[in-house]
Amino acid sequence: MIQYKAILSVIGFLLILVGFFMMLGVPFSLYYGDDDIYALVVSGTLTSLIGAITFFLTRQKNKEIKKRDGYIVVFLGWFVMSLFGAIPFVVHGSIPSYTDAFFETMSGFTTTGASILNNIEALPHGLLFWRSITQWLGGMGIIVLSLAILPILGIGGMQLFVAEVPGPTKDKIHPRVKETAKRLWGIYFLLTFVEVILLLIGGMNLFDAINHSFTTMATGGFSTKQNSIAAFESPFIHYVITVFMFLAGMNFSVHYYLLHAKFNVLNKNEEFKFYTIFIFAATAVVAIALVTSGFGNFEKSFRDSIFQVVSIVTTTGFITADYESWGLFFQLFFFLLLFIGGCAGSTGGGIKIVRHLLLIKNSVLELRRLIHPRAVIPVRFNGSSVGQEIVSNILAFFLFYLGIFIFGTIVMSLMGLDFVSSLGSVATSLGNVGPAIGSVGPVYNFAHLPDLGKWFLSFLMLLGRLELFTVLIIFSPAFWKK
Amino acid sequence: MIQYKAILSVIGFLLILVGFFMMLGVPFSLYYGDDDIYALVVSGTLTSLIGAITFFLTRQKNKEIKKRDGYIVVFLGWFVMSLFGAIPFVVHGSIPSYTDAFFETMSGFTTTGASILNNIEALPHGLLFWRSITQWLGGMGIIVLSLAILPILGIGGMQLFVAEVPGPTKDKIHPRVKETAKRLWGIYFLLTFVEVILLLIGGMNLFDAINHSFTTMATGGFSTKQNSIAAFESPFIHYVITVFMFLAGMNFSVHYYLLHAKFNVLNKNEEFKFYTIFIFAATAVVAIALVTSGFGNFEKSFRDSIFQVVSIVTTTGFITADYESWGLFFQLFFFLLLFIGGCAGSTGGGIKIVRHLLLIKNSVLELRRLIHPRAVIPVRFNGSSVGQEIVSNILAFFLFYLGIFIFGTIVMSLMGLDFVSSLGSVATSLGNVGPAIGSVGPVYNFAHLPDLGKWFLSFLMLLGRLELFTVLIIFSPAFWKK
Repeated sequence: MIQYKAILSVIGFLLILVGFFMMLGVPFSLYYGDDDIYALVVSGTLTSLIGAITFFLTRQKNKEIKKRDGYIVVFLGWFVMSLFGAIPFVVHGSIPSYTDAFFETMSGFTTTGASILNNIEALPHGLLFWRSITQWLGGMGIIVLSLAILPILGIGGMQLFVAEVPGPTKDKIHPRVKETAKRLWGIYFLLTFVEVILLLIGGMNLFDAINHSFTTMATGGFSTKQNSIAAFESPFIHYVITVFMFLAGMNFSVHYYLLHAKFNVLNKNEEFKFYTIFIFAATAVVAIALVTSGFGNFEKSFRDSIFQVVSIVTTTGFITADYESWGLFFQLFFFLLLFIGGCAGSTGGGIKIVRHLLLIKNSVLELRRLIHPRAVIPVRFNGSSVGQEIVSNILAFFLFYLGIFIFGTIVMSLMGLDFVSSLGSVATSLGNVGPAIGSVGPVYNFAHLPDLGKWFLSFLMLLGRLELFTVLIIFSPAFWKK
Repeated sequence: MIQYKAILSVIGFLLILVGFFMMLGVPFSLYYGDDDIYALVVSGTLTSLIGAITFFLTRQKNKEIKKRDGYIVVFLGWFVMSLFGAIPFVVHGSIPSYTDAFFETMSGFTTTGASILNNIEALPHGLLFWRSITQWLGGMGIIVLSLAILPILGIGGMQLFVAEVPGPTKDKIHPRVKETAKRLWGIYFLLTFVEVILLLIGGMNLFDAINHSFTTMATGGFSTKQNSIAAFESPFIHYVITVFMFLAGMNFSVHYYLLHAKFNVLNKNEEFKFYTIFIFAATAVVAIALVTSGFGNFEKSFRDSIFQVVSIVTTTGFITADYESWGLFFQLFFFLLLFIGGCAGSTGGGIKIVRHLLLIKNSVLELRRLIHPRAVIPVRFNGSSVGQEIVSNILAFFLFYLGIFIFGTIVMSLMGLDFVSSLGSVATSLGNVGPAIGSVGPVYNFAHLPDLGKWFLSFLMLLGRLELFTVLIIFSPAFWKK
């Protein structure tokens, strides 16, 4: 039995919070004398009110959310939050089309960072702040989802990464989620706070510092500037954001161990090592290609390379340079980087480092299995062997990801997008990155897409953000039987 | 112990045949009064002589080729045949660059059909015939390889498709190969012969009819015309070639059963059903898109659609229309078709229908496994359940295919190719198709690529043709140990 009442009460509770957070930008608007206070207060109050009514009508004592309800809560939660989160933009009129506002909000809550805005600076401060908050909240949601909820649901090999965290029960997710969330959110707050301080030191004003810290830690990539981080000339700011994107793309349980001075976690954690090596290798490739193609300044080449690589690999999507203008090779290379993704248990989206790592390991072993057909050769990860059902789950994840990507490109292409932009728009949406290639490249935006395309890409963002299976399972007939 | 002598004696024997087949075009050259007789006779004699010397120096009695030798024979066989097969083009001077001649010959023996020729009609008839023969021989080789040799080597799930054929021994491959080869080649000859007759009826001259039948049955796609099949205006010829490409893309063991009047094989064989449905569905998509985008003639739209779809899906590569000129959607769609491939046990290359089918089945089952974590749900194919090691082998094949494709596009892109052409050239080479998209699209050729790119793509053709593992295994250190 699916417990609709329990599900609705969670959704109601989330809406109360969403409404509250919408109004957090009001002080900024008051300070800057902007005209969006009315829109924020009305939308926020309305959202909270609807949330409160839903919550109190459906509230039950001692009701536990079960596994199957969990899938629905997660999917519906993100979806309903985006539905309501879009309201202030429309009420204020700075994004008159609801489709556009929904796209922007979904891009926020999924920490994607793709935007339909042509002139970001024209938005009032309160709405800009709400836009950044959607990403920050999305990031908080995703950490808890990936480190506490999905492992229990057995999604996409997620059980691998939290083997250390002991869980009280398998079917009741509430107690474990609460406990894990508290620890992880502490780290998330702390890192955000430190970044704000460093960006202030780098010369950003408080408003920009808070906004960019919110969207860095969420690996979101929304900026308060149309030119993204390129609007800030300070190399210090570029490096600070590079470092924090890198930190946000790490597994947050690694941060937890580091804070408890267990530094050998860095050496024991294969995913972290692979993540670091991959980023430096990709940076080296880009930097060398840049320098050999006649780009002058060495420091600037290195900085632009590492910034763009970290930004795309962690699925943040900030930009300090237009990698497409660098040459033909870079367009392909950055397109491929859209498929990497951060570490599991980070705020990053995409396929994720650990899945790539396990797929590579398993493929190499398959060659050895061919040579020694009778030997049983399991994949090993972080020192212990990985069960075949997890490998098979990760493979299925990868194939679904690819299948949805291919299907998506056909859909976008039928809507009239060219080859490169079809591939790019789908890859960046599904991977929750933000910028892509072609007509949705780093210096362009998504405004010119048809409405249907915007809804479709919004759905892909959600699909990618929820690790595919969470959504796919709801759409499979077997889920609703029994 | 690797039996180098036994391996060399097989290679020697192959070279004797190659030299002999080179000279088969001489009668045509005599008839047409062409100037390539000297080149053919000298190259053919030289090749046969070197083959004969190698064969007699290394011949041993009662020596059986073992499994590990098999990998080397297959790889070295294709490679050495291409090395020698390129000679007549260079000796005659119509392809002065050895790199180009090697590319063309490898494209022949691997039944790819990618060409560096800018003016095919300028070639003398004997060389044109040799060019077609390379494909026909390649097709013969591949049928035996995929239906008799690879299953024994356990490559990429190939053991699935020949479960019915009883094998005398597991380790000695000679007797089974001989027996299977005889049956399958009979079918191959018969189908080639029937196509020649039909093409003659359609109004082709004997020379063109034989050449095109050779390259159709091999799913090769070399034509005697620069404009490929578009050079022939007869719709009858287009339909005949469509049908024979379809037949060549079928599993040849299905033909065997059909010839023995066991017609229910069509109903029992899931791969054949999926192949047929897929081709008609893809044709429908293309035809509808063509008609709705204002293409007039309905019959011509249908004919162009089904011809191009069958040609690309079966990896033949004949062309009657430039699908890229139809619009943006078609470029993406035909690019995706480059990854389908014919049925296993056909002369077609690519990933192959059966692998796609099993991957789809397994992925869908994975959703059910998530909902019922304790249930054991095996993949079923043709009525029986498929072992997990085969599924895992197919998954590994798919990932290697994708990994090599991605690596290949980076390499081609570093050589200066644009995004679309990098993807296209690698996809078509690895899939043994022929035409691609972008600067290597259906109305272009591979002449403008840098030499290094031609060698690299030649290697990819061979890798794809030999189902990856046959080559990868030779390059893995574990193969050479023990």
